Parts: sequence; structure tokens; C-alpha cells
Amino acid sequence: VDLPADLERALVDAVGAEHVRPGTEEPGACVDWTGRFVGESPAVVRPADTEQVAAVLAACSAAGATVVPQGGNTGLVGGSVPLKGEIVLSLVRLRRLDDVDRSARQVTAGAGVTLGDLQQHARAAGFAYAVDLAARDTATVGGSVATNAGGVHVLRYGDTRRQLVGVEFALSDGRVVRHLSGLEKDNTGYDLAGLFCGSEGTLGVVTAARLRLVPRRAERVAALLAFAETADALAAAQAIRDRTPDLEAAELFFDDGMRLVCEAFSLTSPFADSSAVYLLIECAADDDPTTRLGSLIEETPASDAAVAHDHDRRLALWSYRELHTSAINTVGAPHKLDVTIPLDRMPAFATEIRARIGELGPGVRVWLFGHALDGNLHVNVTGLAPDDERVEELVFPLVVSLGGSISAEHGIGTAKKRWLHLARTQTEIEVFRAIKLALDPAGILNPNVLL
Amino acid sequence: VDLPADLERALVDAVGAEHVRPGTEEPGACVDWTGRFVGESPAVVRPADTEQVAAVLAACSAAGATVVPQGGNTGLVGGSVPLKGEIVLSLVRLRRLDDVDRSARQVTAGAGVTLGDLQQHARAAGFAYAVDLAARDTATVGGSVATNAGGVHVLRYGDTRRQLVGVEFALSDGRVVRHLSGLEKDNTGYDLAGLFCGSEGTLGVVTAARLRLVPRRAERVAALLAFAETADALAAAQAIRDRTPDLEAAELFFDDGMRLVCEAFSLTSPFADSSAVYLLIECAADDDPTTRLGSLIEETPASDAAVAHDHDRRLALWSYRELHTSAINTVGAPHKLDVTIPLDRMPAFATEIRARIGELGPGVRVWLFGHALDGNLHVNVTGLAPDDERVEELVFPLVVSLGGSISAEHGIGTAKKRWLHLARTQTEIEVFRAIKLALDPAGILNPNVLL
Repeated sequence: VDLPADLERALVDAVGAEHVRPGTEEPGACVDWTGRFVGESPAVVRPADTEQVAAVLAACSAAGATVVPQGGNTGLVGGSVPLKGEIVLSLVRLRRLDDVDRSARQVTAGAGVTLGDLQQHARAAGFAYAVDLAARDTATVGGSVATNAGGVHVLRYGDTRRQLVGVEFALSDGRVVRHLSGLEKDNTGYDLAGLFCGSEGTLGVVTAARLRLVPRRAERVAALLAFAETADALAAAQAIRDRTPDLEAAELFFDDGMRLVCEAFSLTSPFADSSAVYLLIECAADDDPTTRLGSLIEETPASDAAVAHDHDRRLALWSYRELHTSAINTVGAPHKLDVTIPLDRMPAFATEIRARIGELGPGVRVWLFGHALDGNLHVNVTGLAPDDERVEELVFPLVVSLGGSISAEHGIGTAKKRWLHLARTQTEIEVFRAIKLALDPAGILNPNVLL
Repeated sequence: VDLPADLERALVDAVGAEHVRPGTEEPGACVDWTGRFVGESPAVVRPADTEQVAAVLAACSAAGATVVPQGGNTGLVGGSVPLKGEIVLSLVRLRRLDDVDRSARQVTAGAGVTLGDLQQHARAAGFAYAVDLAARDTATVGGSVATNAGGVHVLRYGDTRRQLVGVEFALSDGRVVRHLSGLEKDNTGYDLAGLFCGSEGTLGVVTAARLRLVPRRAERVAALLAFAETADALAAAQAIRDRTPDLEAAELFFDDGMRLVCEAFSLTSPFADSSAVYLLIECAADDDPTTRLGSLIEETPASDAAVAHDHDRRLALWSYRELHTSAINTVGAPHKLDVTIPLDRMPAFATEIRARIGELGPGVRVWLFGHALDGNLHVNVTGLAPDDERVEELVFPLVVSLGGSISAEHGIGTAKKRWLHLARTQTEIEVFRAIKLALDPAGILNPNVLL
């Protein structure tokens, strides 16, 4: 794909020649990290600030060139890859990170700040940033806003949208909207921050965000619990949530995933016997919550429990959960689905989906893990060609029939675009299209995703 | 104003003759409760359910008739009054109230359910609905969603938008969007619930909402504290917030308001001496928070404190705050402004605005009260003609210069429409207009508000 000379000149004028590079020299910007989505780009452009982002968009808009915004490129639905020769607009240099506003308990961060850096910055000021996920050291503020990232703390603090007090973005024609004052009460027109959050780069390019912080809890305890039945694990998670405000995470995984993680990384389970289902709980409080959690665990039907208060032993327990993604990659490039199932139907879903996927052929394996109280299960399938859509054809209608969502936290991207009609009615999709047309009339922004 | 015969027939077909009444027979539907905004209407239409709402809108759309949606009509910015002869679409008959979903901790409620009924319904199931405000027995779910209502618990639970998991609405042409599944994680397209929340009836008509519930706290304690300085009161509120998760309300008012309330309702202050500033605190927890709050109060510079644990004495303390609105009405119809000021600038704002308003003439009085930790001050001015805009001309530029908002929780409505440009840039207003045009291309919905 070639870059028209006029456009190249305009881009170089906007950001400097060293920040306009052909996609062939930036292969990492043209493929997602799972390797499933591969594209090419005439130019990977890295503006330094909001004004340069606006100039890049104005130039692309004038030339009618399509653009894929990109943050850490850690998404799982092909939403930040130039699949059809788009210009890549990388936001990684927008690393503004303002002082924490202690009175408002908020901070303003540029789109290119990683979640890990944001968390560290918040911690240094005595706070925490609530959204946390395994890709924290690569995933960016801009990407997490554009995709409404979830993660492991949603049950206590909500998703990214619930942290977002204000947003700065550039429209496709280069106009900039900046609403970062961080007022908790500000009913002066439509909620653009919430609308842009989760819009997957289709309405504008997020350049900065004003984010709520939460108190930093001094004391943490993690516990790994083993159960014979999925329903028991979910009931235990609900009971603990209902009896303590300290619960911060409740992650669910299964025996096959536990074995795979242990094999792939030479780890040993903390338990002598294996169990069908595991629940990883974390509580955080100002005082040590270990005793409180201990007595709550005693009331559950857990057959085994390992409790860790010190930092290293907590991380060791977390590794059984967090290494799932990497362990599954050792089996082969997986189909990665990410669904929500109403809690009371999750056990039936897990049983049913294992049976159905197993019928797709020998060597086809399904790996389930996720966030117990959100009803969010990650469904990974190995042993099939990446373009084999029988997985989606099996999983999505079942999810919808159970009242669930075909995308819990990953978004629609390009991967699930053709399935959106299962999740949303024709009228809803018409409303989405009307909003898209209103804000990006030429359709140059992230044209391969969502709609 | 007359109703075309075709349209009248279509409306009667849609909802039945007894639910289509001329505005002259429904005077309460044509004026807001402050009496400041008065209009007239050819028809006040009261559909029974979502399908009837859709039919009414389709009929109005076909006839090119403009429509003002109306809930409890308790708004303060003239947003639900037929100022120019619009048809009033009253949602008060949409009183669907589903069983509480205990597992998801959510409930689905029709637009016409009052906040008071919703709260009672939640309490009966062991939960609470977080949004609470003085008009709770008249204000409706639909109105609170359309205006993103705030209230006294925002500091702990956030505004209405943060309670909203899903929404059902009818577009101006009668198409219906229903997304009430209540999944906490559901990244499948744009966040229409958040966009409609606070859109003031300009994008569509909210017919039902899926709302989060919070745990019902068994034990409550209220305390009225007296201070010599506004800054001391604010610092005390922040210190208490930072040291306990139990804080649920922190209301601020001043000596003049206290005296007025006591005079108007023959009440006696709990304190022998008067003070410049009062802070009303409420904490709620599963166990009795009285002792914890008591020791936190001891660390503040409060000169007096009254603490109430039992129900009646708590309500008695609250009455000093909640009777402000009615007490001010005894002085005369007030100009009611509702602004947010960053906390550290609130003392300077209070001093400055008293001085400036006082210069408008003898008999002109300003009454300030509000929500301490949100930075939300209600500015009421008596002694001026209702159409005297010198108040807005004095207050709004000062608010904006201090980094505040010209509407904290009341919205823009018709009252602040001409001042929106102070709060939002030209580009933001263009974006609002583009969204409005996309969803209500004929512009029939609530045409006098916001834009």
C-alpha cells in the first residue's frame, strides 16, 4: 500500500519525519498479539500530543485516508490492526500524567500512559486505579477507554466507564473536544465521555482521560478455594461478596486449566488432590482482612483452601489464574471468545459448551476461565483453524439464548462484527450507525470494526 | 392551541379517549412546580405502556407535532413544560416494577415509578436504591434517568448514570430500543443507556430502566455540626470521608438558611448559639456507626455537634436541610441555580457571590445550600423578578472562571439554554447537535431545552 505524496508531506509536517514510518518497518503495529489478525499499513504515525493528533486526523480526513487508532495493541478482537491498509495512528507518545488531585481523588492521563504506570502513579499518591488486567504493562489508558476495559476488579469498582469523569478526544476532521475538569456533578449536555468509552475508535480518537481513583488498601489477602461443582464456587463467591465489602476479585477456573498452567510453567498446585473448580478470591482493606476472610471461607463448601497474606505468596496464587492465557498459547493459537452469562445459568453453560465444542473433532479443546461475579467467562478453543467459525456459531447463539452477552469486555472489533446482530436489534444497530454517521460522516475512523 | 383532528384520532386510538385530555383540563401538566415556567398544551397524553408510548410518538411524528416528555414534573429548569404548545407525553402510568434480581442486585422499573416507591420496593427485598432526593415521592424513574438526577448520596454511590445498567426507550418515530438484560459486562456497541441518561428528553423517551441496587444498611447515624468557617466544614467532611467508608451524605448550609427554616416552620435549632456554617453528616453501616462517627467528629474543629441515631431524631436533623427549598419559597419565587465549584474554591465563591448578589438591590437575598463533597451548591436568589437574568449574568461567569459547572444536577432545560456556551465549547455543542439530529431528525422531542 502506498502513501500519496501530499498526505505523506502533511503527516511529516504534523509529527516530524521520524514519527512517520512505513508499516513494513513497523511489523508489530500491523498484527495483533495473538497473531490472528494481520494487516499492512502505508504509515504508522506517532504524534506527540493532542494537537498533533488533530493535525494527523485533519490531514487524513482531507485526503480521504482511513485510520486505525492504536494504543498498546493488546486487544483480542482485531480492533487496532490495519486490516485493509489503513494508516495506523499510534497514541503511545501521549504520556501526559498529571499530579493526582487529592481533593477530587482523580487524575488526568494521556492516551499513551500504560495502566501499569497509571497504577504506580496513583499508588505513589496513596490511591489506586481500579481497573487492572494482565496486560497492564502494555495496555494504555486510551485503549482501555476506547474499549471500556473490564478486568479483575469490576465486581468492586466497575468497568472503565465507571472510572471515567471526563475525556479529551479528536474528531475525524481534527476538531478537538476537551472536557477534563473532573466535576462529579456536571449535567451540561450529553455524556460524551461515556459514549466514547467503548466506542472502539469509531467515533473519534481518545487523547486523554480524567479518571477516578480509589483508596489504596494497605492490607490484602488472597485465597484459592477448590470446589467439586461450579455452582458451589459461584454461590461461595456471592456469599462472600454479600458478607464483606472487602472483596475485590473472584476469579473462576477449572481443573484442566490448572493442570495446563502447572505443566506449561512447571508449577505445583497448592493442593494434594485436584478439584473440578477453583475460585481465586482477593480481599483488600485498611486493616488485615485475613481473619474475616478465613471465617467466611469456613462457611463455604470448599474442599481445600490456600490463603496468602504476604506479597509473594499472593502473586503465586494469582499466577495460576493469570498464566492461563500464556499456557493456552502453548497449545496453539486459540479462538478467544469472551462472554457474559447470568450467574445462575453459568454452570449449565459450562457443561453444555464443553460437550458441544468437544464434538467439533478430536484435538479440539475448550478452556474456560473468567470473573465469577460478573458472569464473565473467557472461552478459549484450541485445535481449530483460526478462521473456523464453527466456534462462534456454537457459542454465540447459546449465550444469547441464556440471556448473556457475546462480548463481556473485549468488545466487538472485527472478530465479532458479523455476530453483532445476535446481541443487538436492528433498531439498535440503526441507532449506532446514525451516531457513527453524525460524528464521522466520511467513515475514516477504524472502518473494519463494530458496524 | 388546537389539536388537528387526525392527530387527535390517532392519539385516542393509541391510548384511549380518557387518557387524551386538553391542557386546559390538566393545568398541573402545563406549569412547573416553582411556577416559573408556564405553558399550554393541546393534549396531555398518558399511555399505559411502552407500546402505547411508541404509538403516540409515531402519531406525533407523522403529524409533525412536537412533544414534551413528562415524569413527575419536579424539575427545576423548565424541562418538562409545554412552553410553546407542545403535546405533553406523560409517563406516569408506566409503573412496571419487576421483582428485585437478588443475584444481580438489580431491578427493572418503568418510567412512571416514583423514586420513593422504588426505594421502598428495594428495601423490602433487603436492598436500597442509591439515588435519593427531597422530591422522591413525586419524581419518577424516567425523569431521573432523563436528567441524570443526583441527590444526597452521590458522594458514596454516584449519580443516576452510575446506577443505570440498561434502558428501554422509544425514538421520536416510534421505534423502540430495549436493552434491559442487566449484564454488568456487555461491550456490544455504544453505551446508549449512558447517552440517554441526562439527555433531557431530547433524544428519545425513556420508558424503563434497569438499575443497580446497593446493600441496605441496617444502622444509620446523622450528625449536625456547626463551624465558624466554610473551609473548616469542607475539610471536616473530607476528613470523615477519608477515614470511613460509611459516609453517605454531607450536606452544607449556612446560618441565614438555618434561621429561615426555623422561622418558617417554627423549629428550634439544636444549638444554643448560632454558627456561620452547618454540616449535616449521615453514616450508614451494617453495624452501628455512632461510636466511629463520634470519634471522627472529635477530630474536627466543629464548635457544636448534635448526633442522632434513632429514626425520628435523624429526620429532625435532616429537616433543617430538606426544608430549605420550602422555606425559601415563603420569601418569594426564587431564581434557582445549581452549580458545581471545585471544593478548594467553594469558600471564596460563597463570599464573592453573596457580595455581588447583594449589590443587585435592597431586598435581594441569596440563599446557599448544597452537597459539600460534590462541590454542588444550590444558589437561590429572592427579591428579583423571575425574568431578571442579572443573577445568571453574575453567577455563571464566576462559576466558569473558578473551573466549575453551571449545572450540577438540575440540567440545562430551558432555563440555562442560553448559557450553555459558557460551559461547553462550540465544538462540543456541534457534537451535541449532530447527535440530536441523528436520533431525532425532525426535532419533535422536547424542542425548547438544551440546544
